Amino acid sequence: MKLAMIGLGKMGINLVANLRRNGHEVVAYDLNQAAVTEATNLGAVAATDLDDVIAQLPTPKIVWVMLPAGKPTDATIQTFSEKLNANDILIDGGNSFFEDSLKHNELLSAQGIKFFDAGTSGGMSGANHDGNFMIGGDDAEAFKIIEPIFEGIAQEDGYLYTGKAGSGHYLKMVHNGIEYGMMQSIAEGFDVLEHGQFDYDNEAVAKVWSNGSVIRGWLMELAQSAFSKDPNLEQLKGVMHSSGEGKWTLDEALKLQVPTPVIAMSLMMRYRSMEDDTFTGKVVAALRNEFGGHAVDKK
Amino acid sequence: MKLAMIGLGKMGINLVANLRRNGHEVVAYDLNQAAVTEATNLGAVAATDLDDVIAQLPTPKIVWVMLPAGKPTDATIQTFSEKLNANDILIDGGNSFFEDSLKHNELLSAQGIKFFDAGTSGGMSGANHDGNFMIGGDDAEAFKIIEPIFEGIAQEDGYLYTGKAGSGHYLKMVHNGIEYGMMQSIAEGFDVLEHGQFDYDNEAVAKVWSNGSVIRGWLMELAQSAFSKDPNLEQLKGVMHSSGEGKWTLDEALKLQVPTPVIAMSLMMRYRSMEDDTFTGKVVAALRNEFGGHAVDKK
Repeated sequence: MKLAMIGLGKMGINLVANLRRNGHEVVAYDLNQAAVTEATNLGAVAATDLDDVIAQLPTPKIVWVMLPAGKPTDATIQTFSEKLNANDILIDGGNSFFEDSLKHNELLSAQGIKFFDAGTSGGMSGANHDGNFMIGGDDAEAFKIIEPIFEGIAQEDGYLYTGKAGSGHYLKMVHNGIEYGMMQSIAEGFDVLEHGQFDYDNEAVAKVWSNGSVIRGWLMELAQSAFSKDPNLEQLKGVMHSSGEGKWTLDEALKLQVPTPVIAMSLMMRYRSMEDDTFTGKVVAALRNEFGGHAVDKK
Repeated sequence: MKLAMIGLGKMGINLVANLRRNGHEVVAYDLNQAAVTEATNLGAVAATDLDDVIAQLPTPKIVWVMLPAGKPTDATIQTFSEKLNANDILIDGGNSFFEDSLKHNELLSAQGIKFFDAGTSGGMSGANHDGNFMIGGDDAEAFKIIEPIFEGIAQEDGYLYTGKAGSGHYLKMVHNGIEYGMMQSIAEGFDVLEHGQFDYDNEAVAKVWSNGSVIRGWLMELAQSAFSKDPNLEQLKGVMHSSGEGKWTLDEALKLQVPTPVIAMSLMMRYRSMEDDTFTGKVVAALRNEFGGHAVDKK
């Protein structure tokens, strides 16, 4: 099939490679000209702007938007809502907040444009081959038009039509919330090993746990890979950034009043890691000093 | 090789099957005669008591103890410490607390008996084939004698000699602590899905997450299996038993003063699940009533 890829960052460029390997024609666009050149090296055809994207696509036009969530995605979908026609298809493969996807769906479906929110997992390597896609969209029939795309670029059994618009990004959000908890748990275990009385080779541990144990999985394989490059991660600071999906999962859990203490704690530990010192720590130290005269550490 | 398997419960009997399939001769013993018969059906030779076990083994004798941790294991190792000779080998494949394993090592090595603590993961299916073993023991040379056993019954790269006695069970303990956090995180995610605004097929979700996603792994495959039998787990109560290793991991983290909030919270949520009602809940309800006249639910 022929489709456009809008956004050729780490995920978009790998998706172009994956689509090309699966025999699809790709019209590639990005603000960054170097990324467009990289896409053409993969066999994609360059587009000079969004009008040129439109001009190069057959009907129904299929546009895959793969941009950072929030303003870049919002603005691009707004523009395409004015350029696409009824029965054209827009796929948002980024990490959009599901409530934004509901708005995008409203905007597009008012004009008969078919919207699909495709949560994408598997990292850059998954985008490149054997990816994972959770795809929501109100029109199940229209999904059949784009299904062959996912069949090829996904891992076997690695895509799912999840139902109504928003349900793909919602599922991806919860996936990421789970990921926060799993990663924190794995990390805490290695932290115990690092401080305990035995002397383990972290890479060897991650390797044996990756082969036949109950906790085997891709995250453990990634831990093995990381330890193979830096056995005690001495080159890193333990600062844990986050890009929003863990917080959204917690927001949603609070809205639904579903107790999710482990996902919540994982998010809090990420926030804690962003601070060298905490006001919480100062308050507790001050209170201990007030009631018990306990020593405080001064600046 | 020829070795004895002491304890033919869910794990032991599957290990006998695994060992037999790998061409080893097994002398099988259990207090439960039906289990011994099952082992003989797998090609093991029955032993009538521990003296008979000893009588049937060549030198150096290799005895694998696969019993519940605590008293059954302690008593059996005590008995073997009196029946085995220098350079004989005793493997404890159960879930013993690592400090007990240090005591067992002291007891046995005082007589020159080689002790190995083999943490065993992969569940019953892993015991049966492609298992996972973390093996500690002071005598790395003696490990080479038993290494061919693990080579056959383990998944490829699925066994590790972890160093000094105790280090195998310690590593298995931390493995289980990680498992608690991973399981709780996965479960919380499905809980959000269950309460959220979209209608997901839990089995389909677990399946797509098992194929190419970042959170893929054996636990997700087991979730898929569970949902395939009971799509919304309506046959179950959400009571989460535990068998000690999560608590030991937390005990160790507290001893080392390593912050492990997610593993701790996972354990606390298991304890919470064992109670229909809580005294905590009563105290908070009473306090809200005292200061604000807020309604309480009465029995």
